[in-house]
Amino acid sequence: MNEFGFRFRVGIFGASHGPCVGAKIEGCPAGSKISEAIIQIELDRRSPGRGPLTTERRERDRLEIVSGVRDGKATGGPIVGLVRNQDTDSSVYEAFKRVPRPGHADYPAMVKYGGLHDHRGGGQFSGRMTAALVIAGAIARQVLDKKNISLLAQTVQIGDVVLDKTIPFSVAERAVRTSAVGCADRETSALMTQEILRAHEDKDSVGGIVKCTIVGLPVGVGEPFFASMESVLSAMMFSIPAVKGVEFGSGFRCASMRGSEHNDQYAVRGGKIVTRTNNAGGILGGLSNGMPVEFRVAFKPTSSIAKPQLSVDLVDKKPVELQIKGRHDPCIVPRAIPVVENATACVVLDLMLQGGFI
Amino acid sequence: MNEFGFRFRVGIFGASHGPCVGAKIEGCPAGSKISEAIIQIELDRRSPGRGPLTTERRERDRLEIVSGVRDGKATGGPIVGLVRNQDTDSSVYEAFKRVPRPGHADYPAMVKYGGLHDHRGGGQFSGRMTAALVIAGAIARQVLDKKNISLLAQTVQIGDVVLDKTIPFSVAERAVRTSAVGCADRETSALMTQEILRAHEDKDSVGGIVKCTIVGLPVGVGEPFFASMESVLSAMMFSIPAVKGVEFGSGFRCASMRGSEHNDQYAVRGGKIVTRTNNAGGILGGLSNGMPVEFRVAFKPTSSIAKPQLSVDLVDKKPVELQIKGRHDPCIVPRAIPVVENATACVVLDLMLQGGFI
Amino acid sequence: MNEFGFRFRVGIFGASHGPCVGAKIEGCPAGSKISEAIIQIELDRRSPGRGPLTTERRERDRLEIVSGVRDGKATGGPIVGLVRNQDTDSSVYEAFKRVPRPGHADYPAMVKYGGLHDHRGGGQFSGRMTAALVIAGAIARQVLDKKNISLLAQTVQIGDVVLDKTIPFSVAERAVRTSAVGCADRETSALMTQEILRAHEDKDSVGGIVKCTIVGLPVGVGEPFFASMESVLSAMMFSIPAVKGVEFGSGFRCASMRGSEHNDQYAVRGGKIVTRTNNAGGILGGLSNGMPVEFRVAFKPTSSIAKPQLSVDLVDKKPVELQIKGRHDPCIVPRAIPVVENATACVVLDLMLQGGFI
Amino acid sequence: MNEFGFRFRVGIFGASHGPCVGAKIEGCPAGSKISEAIIQIELDRRSPGRGPLTTERRERDRLEIVSGVRDGKATGGPIVGLVRNQDTDSSVYEAFKRVPRPGHADYPAMVKYGGLHDHRGGGQFSGRMTAALVIAGAIARQVLDKKNISLLAQTVQIGDVVLDKTIPFSVAERAVRTSAVGCADRETSALMTQEILRAHEDKDSVGGIVKCTIVGLPVGVGEPFFASMESVLSAMMFSIPAVKGVEFGSGFRCASMRGSEHNDQYAVRGGKIVTRTNNAGGILGGLSNGMPVEFRVAFKPTSSIAKPQLSVDLVDKKPVELQIKGRHDPCIVPRAIPVVENATACVVLDLMLQGGFI
Repeated sequence: MNEFGFRFRVGIFGASHGPCVGAKIEGCPAGSKISEAIIQIELDRRSPGRGPLTTERRERDRLEIVSGVRDGKATGGPIVGLVRNQDTDSSVYEAFKRVPRPGHADYPAMVKYGGLHDHRGGGQFSGRMTAALVIAGAIARQVLDKKNISLLAQTVQIGDVVLDKTIPFSVAERAVRTSAVGCADRETSALMTQEILRAHEDKDSVGGIVKCTIVGLPVGVGEPFFASMESVLSAMMFSIPAVKGVEFGSGFRCASMRGSEHNDQYAVRGGKIVTRTNNAGGILGGLSNGMPVEFRVAFKPTSSIAKPQLSVDLVDKKPVELQIKGRHDPCIVPRAIPVVENATACVVLDLMLQGGFI
Repeated sequence: MNEFGFRFRVGIFGASHGPCVGAKIEGCPAGSKISEAIIQIELDRRSPGRGPLTTERRERDRLEIVSGVRDGKATGGPIVGLVRNQDTDSSVYEAFKRVPRPGHADYPAMVKYGGLHDHRGGGQFSGRMTAALVIAGAIARQVLDKKNISLLAQTVQIGDVVLDKTIPFSVAERAVRTSAVGCADRETSALMTQEILRAHEDKDSVGGIVKCTIVGLPVGVGEPFFASMESVLSAMMFSIPAVKGVEFGSGFRCASMRGSEHNDQYAVRGGKIVTRTNNAGGILGGLSNGMPVEFRVAFKPTSSIAKPQLSVDLVDKKPVELQIKGRHDPCIVPRAIPVVENATACVVLDLMLQGGFI
Repeated sequence: MNEFGFRFRVGIFGASHGPCVGAKIEGCPAGSKISEAIIQIELDRRSPGRGPLTTERRERDRLEIVSGVRDGKATGGPIVGLVRNQDTDSSVYEAFKRVPRPGHADYPAMVKYGGLHDHRGGGQFSGRMTAALVIAGAIARQVLDKKNISLLAQTVQIGDVVLDKTIPFSVAERAVRTSAVGCADRETSALMTQEILRAHEDKDSVGGIVKCTIVGLPVGVGEPFFASMESVLSAMMFSIPAVKGVEFGSGFRCASMRGSEHNDQYAVRGGKIVTRTNNAGGILGGLSNGMPVEFRVAFKPTSSIAKPQLSVDLVDKKPVELQIKGRHDPCIVPRAIPVVENATACVVLDLMLQGGFI
Repeated sequence: MNEFGFRFRVGIFGASHGPCVGAKIEGCPAGSKISEAIIQIELDRRSPGRGPLTTERRERDRLEIVSGVRDGKATGGPIVGLVRNQDTDSSVYEAFKRVPRPGHADYPAMVKYGGLHDHRGGGQFSGRMTAALVIAGAIARQVLDKKNISLLAQTVQIGDVVLDKTIPFSVAERAVRTSAVGCADRETSALMTQEILRAHEDKDSVGGIVKCTIVGLPVGVGEPFFASMESVLSAMMFSIPAVKGVEFGSGFRCASMRGSEHNDQYAVRGGKIVTRTNNAGGILGGLSNGMPVEFRVAFKPTSSIAKPQLSVDLVDKKPVELQIKGRHDPCIVPRAIPVVENATACVVLDLMLQGGFI
């Protein structure tokens, strides 16, 4: 089932080259203020830009809400928002039914659906489906805003360029939106841009890491075990195409740490219980502990590259050299920033509703 | 809701110091052979051992199946299996209601439930709850066995000791079960054991990494987006206490890779479509692609350590030095091996049932 | 959650006077032939007719499928179909926020949503929402057709006019579609029409009973207890506005029967196991038993009537005489026929998928 | 899935002749007072009595709670309660695998599970499973009690004996518990008892009707369409074995009513909005409207009768005369009273939690 969530329930529909891509949302509290303009801004952040950093596919991604919002407020009924597909040249995709592109879903999807699915442009596996996540998340986010919960995703690595500074949340919040690569540091942004351009010149692509931070969460969001914050957030992150890893707080570094070093010891600051470090990434026992929730998401390099690659003809079962035409994002990370942020908003709102916080 | 899955649906119940810990399972196909002895073996693997490597809590964890199995076969009705709790000295836990232990769920759980939950021994947040996962998984595994699907978890890192060899699946399968630390290489096992003993001597604990491999999966297991294999597997892994990171295939390394390097190019071997590398970790577009599914799970060092730690008195809001008595696993990783394996089995069976493979 | 089903999962959205009414469907098997023309025919059956028997609201209910169907086949992804609302004069509804109409959801909806919902035309409580059920059901039905499962709803009572003949399934199937009131007997149809016209002349409305029959089901459809065929069918029927009763087979008559009379004794006919009577209505233990599934659904008289009625002003808490203007269906039953049939198809397909029959 | 509910989620397990019958409950609010004695009382009401009115199967049905309750309060974790099976003579059931009993699930269950299920005593189709519903409901009921919501089921018809008086709720509440047949009127009780004894003497059984009333509900409980109060209540009722019909308020009588007669007109009484009649049965648009919720449930005569019946041998496909030995309830209705009441409590609590009332 292409559905996520329990109390804030999101179903995405459509396909890359079908009539539209959209989301149906159950559980948005009646009376919540929903600005379509804000959703449109988030969609625009995800849209391919102008420069050489992104694909040339031109989708205007004009939001259309056909259910659940009236006079700028949620009615309490299901919300349905969608964007029509316009720029869909499907002709090139016919070949991939027979010769699967490395790194794409082509081959397992062909086997799973026996060729009966809509394979054009990746169909329901396409990165374009993330527009639906952005619609749902931008709605969730507006509800969270009223609760003073803020979300920030930022690029912390592209290829070999790693952001090695910690930038205060409020500064980063603004800086990320003006950086072409979604990095809060201007210098690192420039280096990351070069890294992407180099990959592009080499007819290649490059990966990266996005860090996401949630501030303002009350203590106790999340449920034990199967709906732990980490479980639900990671499930959502791994539903975003190209994600290969998710880690919270200390993450994989925890393996070589000692308990005395890793345990975040408690302190009282301004009458509030805090921890002196945040190796937990703001989560203990699956529940938010009042510290910022922090996690990192690894994105693989874009699978579509201009370099020739080896594949096989599924009918003949013979090796074939494949060359993917057209232009594609040489690095998906900058466009993933709003996707990570808004997808996170869906998770947080769902867990807050589950926990009775809203 | 403390429930996992869609077609093979697992709910866990009980608490560390309640009468029992158990699992209720819906969706096990009628007629599946279920050996209680096999489940017991998996429970025994998870049980604390004898040596200095593990806690001295003595639970016999004798399996009791009270529903859904008759004459060694699933009846098609819900299966309920449980283990009684025996060795429960709850007296020490009273203090932690007021002075939370660093690294444990004590503090957020106290806030979330207002002290109304069963906090003894970590209650429903306890690592002991993983016995329930093992029961459910050991059932799932028996169904998968008939489909020639094999699962193997192994310790690949403890503290600074990293396994740097690749050991063939069938060799590792046997070696892991005889290693005290769940590592397939004898020499590395010895080093890992020393690493754990050193932490123990220092009244400290240490983390590690578990690698899990699934072989024999057909192509196409998993569903697009929210039920992608990565989404469901990671959600399950992050429900295991102490997990801080999950990565598939290339994982976080993918960030510094080029697409031409990361894309697994196709080949035909023995009439079968394979990929020449496995950076994808056996998953494309959320679906299994016929290669081994591989993922790595990072475990933090055990939170309970004998060293004094700083905490706060939640009533006074004053700093307190806390010393945790009793003995605990200085490293959770060896006992996590059967948990990762069996929890993985639940996921795989659920997705196979969803996809109509069983 | 406005969602139904487990394997064939239907969510309806929109509102009577919003932009559209529609359904999102998960779980339609990839490759299923989906004719939009057939869905349109079912929508047309539900649409208000021309004569005095129905409302004068003129909705063309032109089907638009925006996801999940390509070249006349289900892609395996979510299907979304909708009809735009056109003829929406909302001005009259403002008054009902303050003075609730007897028999309508106005009053409890006002309390539940604090006036924040879309109350126009009944909003998400409107009978118009059944167009969404028809869309979903007409899709399910096409899948069932391939399995030789047929569904027939027919009017068996309007006011005091009761159909007292049993008409063979195949004859009734055709006759129902040509009767203005959905009754398979021509004479009874005429009497029912008069009954409705009489109510209309009296500025009143009248109720009735629909009988639904499912033939061709394999044995064993349905699940024990909570997903018994009766449970799921009745839940669906009671989601149709105006339904007050649902009974299977002997129904309420069973109360005065003896076991020896009620038990359907077994026989073999043409090598097939059958029962000599069908008091069970084709269902035993919640499972289909191979006999026709039969149930009856009672519809109350339309709540909107032209006669003046007593209500209260919710602000003043004073009695008010209310007169509902405009014209409404004097009897909802004829238009409910395609709704019952198609809603039933959703249930049957969902249970067949659950049971592994498809 | 043998599970019910969304926020108060009940899964039942076990089988008539397995080790136990029980329920697992998710979503009982932490801190709710749960008296095991009260649950035991409800279980005792359901237990077979002493006289000739009921079966002679002797189950003590001693409640055992193994999870989720500590010191008389819900911990917030899953609650698991069960009763062990003791008096299980399974020998007689072997024959029914081959020669199905009329009126029972034997035949469709045999086809569905291919003989792999636990058929003894009806297995998971047995009326004995309703003990699990009673456990879950008696927990829900204690939560509802604190909200001043009361539930009352009463026998209003047995065979041809119909209760023709309306007895005030509070009087009936007490009287029902002292009547052997669950009828609030002493005289009618006596007649009903005779009706049952007559059926018993004739080696036969007889059906009846239970009426259930819920008072104290706030306005707005229930959700539009698929989770309408009627939908969820009827689904629950039809999961109780032997139920053939469910109707709300006017029920099937509505078919011959006019709108002007059926519509419940509004009035103000004591500052409260009420309706002058209650044909709606307290529900409009699927939502409670503040009036008592009233519905009626038809139970068929017990399927197990001592009279010889015609069946077929499923292997030979030849007619067989079947005689069911042992003694069975000649009328299930008296024992169904606590089942209807407690099952209703599960529904009401689930919908109140969904609606944010608790």
